[in-house]
Amino acid sequence: MHPVLIEGEWKQSDQPLGVFQAIDPSSGQTLADEYPISNALELERALQAGVEAAEMMFSIDSSLVVAFLRGYADRIETNAARLADIAHLETALPISPRLIEMEIPRTILQLRLAADAAEQESWREAKIDHEASIASCMGPLGAPVLVIGPSNFPFAYNGIAGGDFAAAIAAQNPVIAKAHPLHPSTTRLLGEFAAEAAADSGLPQSVVQLVYDVKPEDGLRLAGDRRLGALAFTGSRRAGLALKNAADDGGTPAYLEMSAVNPVFVLPGALTNHSEQLIDDYYNSCTLGVGQFCTSPGLLVLPKSDNTELVLNSIAQRFDGSDAGTMLAASLAANAVSVIEQLLSGGASFVSNDRRSEQTGAYFYPMLLRCTAKQFLSNTQTLQSEAFGPIGLAVVAEDIQQMITIARTLEGSLTATVYSDQDGSDDDDYKRIAPLLRARCGRLLNDKMPTGVTVSPAMNHGGPYPATGHPGFTAVGMPGAIRRFAALHCYDHVRTNRLPKCLRS
Amino acid sequence: MHPVLIEGEWKQSDQPLGVFQAIDPSSGQTLADEYPISNALELERALQAGVEAAEMMFSIDSSLVVAFLRGYADRIETNAARLADIAHLETALPISPRLIEMEIPRTILQLRLAADAAEQESWREAKIDHEASIASCMGPLGAPVLVIGPSNFPFAYNGIAGGDFAAAIAAQNPVIAKAHPLHPSTTRLLGEFAAEAAADSGLPQSVVQLVYDVKPEDGLRLAGDRRLGALAFTGSRRAGLALKNAADDGGTPAYLEMSAVNPVFVLPGALTNHSEQLIDDYYNSCTLGVGQFCTSPGLLVLPKSDNTELVLNSIAQRFDGSDAGTMLAASLAANAVSVIEQLLSGGASFVSNDRRSEQTGAYFYPMLLRCTAKQFLSNTQTLQSEAFGPIGLAVVAEDIQQMITIARTLEGSLTATVYSDQDGSDDDDYKRIAPLLRARCGRLLNDKMPTGVTVSPAMNHGGPYPATGHPGFTAVGMPGAIRRFAALHCYDHVRTNRLPKCLRS
Repeated sequence: MHPVLIEGEWKQSDQPLGVFQAIDPSSGQTLADEYPISNALELERALQAGVEAAEMMFSIDSSLVVAFLRGYADRIETNAARLADIAHLETALPISPRLIEMEIPRTILQLRLAADAAEQESWREAKIDHEASIASCMGPLGAPVLVIGPSNFPFAYNGIAGGDFAAAIAAQNPVIAKAHPLHPSTTRLLGEFAAEAAADSGLPQSVVQLVYDVKPEDGLRLAGDRRLGALAFTGSRRAGLALKNAADDGGTPAYLEMSAVNPVFVLPGALTNHSEQLIDDYYNSCTLGVGQFCTSPGLLVLPKSDNTELVLNSIAQRFDGSDAGTMLAASLAANAVSVIEQLLSGGASFVSNDRRSEQTGAYFYPMLLRCTAKQFLSNTQTLQSEAFGPIGLAVVAEDIQQMITIARTLEGSLTATVYSDQDGSDDDDYKRIAPLLRARCGRLLNDKMPTGVTVSPAMNHGGPYPATGHPGFTAVGMPGAIRRFAALHCYDHVRTNRLPKCLRS
Repeated sequence: MHPVLIEGEWKQSDQPLGVFQAIDPSSGQTLADEYPISNALELERALQAGVEAAEMMFSIDSSLVVAFLRGYADRIETNAARLADIAHLETALPISPRLIEMEIPRTILQLRLAADAAEQESWREAKIDHEASIASCMGPLGAPVLVIGPSNFPFAYNGIAGGDFAAAIAAQNPVIAKAHPLHPSTTRLLGEFAAEAAADSGLPQSVVQLVYDVKPEDGLRLAGDRRLGALAFTGSRRAGLALKNAADDGGTPAYLEMSAVNPVFVLPGALTNHSEQLIDDYYNSCTLGVGQFCTSPGLLVLPKSDNTELVLNSIAQRFDGSDAGTMLAASLAANAVSVIEQLLSGGASFVSNDRRSEQTGAYFYPMLLRCTAKQFLSNTQTLQSEAFGPIGLAVVAEDIQQMITIARTLEGSLTATVYSDQDGSDDDDYKRIAPLLRARCGRLLNDKMPTGVTVSPAMNHGGPYPATGHPGFTAVGMPGAIRRFAALHCYDHVRTNRLPKCLRS
């Protein structure tokens, strides 16, 4: 059984509560490597080591953090092929272009941007009031951060390598990472590179710790512990809300990226004049990565018009002509089937072929459903269920007024999209609908689909509850993402040589 | 009975759950004006009106907000004398300098700084990535904000006039204000000026709503309603945590400024060489405003040395020579007595005279207690109880190591202070203690006491839990305070003429 990384060392898990192995979703075969489910005492030891590391990291020179992040990024770069192979085996995500050309480079980029932000102190938002002898800046939390990564990004959101990890470290906090049990070997290898980079950088030994899995009750106890500085989680709403609840009780900020239907509203002019583009875009975006993106456009809202049926049938044809994709796990494919059943129970019906019966193992076919606006409005909770997979629900509204009413009932989403005509004929409708969507999403798009989250300082990968736990923060984009793991530090009348560097000017 | 301000009008409260009157704390006499306790249905009407106002305010031009904030500030300025008279009657706070020269001007300043921030859009933190066609800025929550003000600042933190109010409005959110029941007539008068200014500005009628009191269960239901955009509260930890709990369940960000002991650490050199200053500073700060400040320095930690007893006795003499002050209410004075009893139960003893028996009505004498570090460490929860009133607890440590251990056990506070010698003899000790305090407070001070919160962009009136509900935000200082009531809005590929002004460059 593989050891865990706690207290600055790789150690055999002490009296683990169980053992698990990853499964190759393509073949259904169990992989050989064995990983422990850590017990509560092991988590307590990790927490205590994290508390001690946090105290040490609080006052260190940021150059150590920079060296760690860059050294780690370099190691990932050097070992990209090996990492991609392991991740492919555990997740069935294509090696090329997905892993080797997109996700691994993005992960490296995020670590390097975090290093740049730490070096330039751009995350600190220094403010100096000379007259009042007051100055303030963002600073470390002074406590460890728990990072729990999702199934669908073995690198870019991995608890020990992704954006949350990079941001928490950039703000000089140690991280306790929990691997996603669907890709433990990928995570272990990342953990080895992280531990090597940490040792080289001179950071405290316990700056990075890693456990592979825990029992839910133990994870919640850790999340609710007051010694924790913050928690970052990407995953399902059910797990996210349980963690939020625990963290809230402890007074710990919890940054959660949970779920979203990412509505796409098509205005009448766009439906008439840009239907080909819409059909292409929707099919491509909804089925990309077998629909396993948090920004997958699950909900398509469009008005009744001469070509509504034509457009829906064209999208359905594309869905029907598509091969099955391999999802990350058979359990995810089974869950996608159950969400379809939920949508059907809410009044939806198939536009594409119903290929539920063809789902075997992790193989899953894209499917398109539809309902009327009236159905949607009378079953809004059920029909807003996120379908994690290549599943679309088209809502056909009688008119713009009904589309507006739908917009008002939407929960918080990561994204919302409006397709409108380029000739201006949709502009009045846009003005009525866009503000309603604006208030209910993190990123508002025009005329393009939401999959693909650019790593940019201007990005917001976030949104109102329940898409996330707080509407004011982004999980992607430096230095914004770092701010989540920082505390506001004010210095009043503090002697100049005692101020942090960024306030000494 | 005075009407409430809901749905854009002053209306008689519909079937109020009770009636209350303020009391003049100086005389103990009940004042004539009668105010309603609103029922749940009235809160629901206010919430619904707030939701509608929020939708309107979401897209308005910021000039309306600016006009409102300035018009309101002007009205308060014009009516300052009348406002100060009423507030003095309800709170016993001195008209001069406290109300007329300090708190009312500060309130006006905050409203005007909020107006400036709205005009200059400095709170929006615009970020533009031309290459990626992505831009982001902070924007309105699109939902009403509930603001609940405290007893101790009838103006500067009033739910309908204070910093939270100004910040929430500056971010284009409507406010539902709950008055503090100790000063309803002050709040009513402010509400009248606010309503007039709102009508003049052209903002939606329900931009400002006001209820005077509610039953706790109804307040918690409102706090937990998902239609609420955020909640701001200043007051006791007990009430704050109940509100946080409710808001957390609804996914609503809650900004709470709850309580703090505001530790003051005196290093050996300062104790030897600056004892006169320390005695003066501590006495003045701890008794200022009858100790009714959230930044009152409740905890004084100092090492055993040749003059420790002399210093403590000198402070105690100053306390003993002080007149009784009039607290905001007899209930607060009674509560201060009960906190002293709690400290005594934790092992503390009197340094000043024990004048508990002389407490009558709202009159209260300052008192100084002491305990050993050992006692403090074995009863740390009890001895960290906030004493809201002019009560100090001095902790005498055997040595620096014990002071460090104490620092590690401290809960989050708004402020922490270190007195150290000017000759450098305390520098090594400072380096060991200051980071521990830095991690446990919002504002770190050197050689001066924490009372007096300068209104500055560099201020942090905030701190780690449980001083507040989130370590990353300040309640004082623009534009920082506004960020609490804003959501991060990203625009991806959105046509230029559809972007908010600040992103169009």
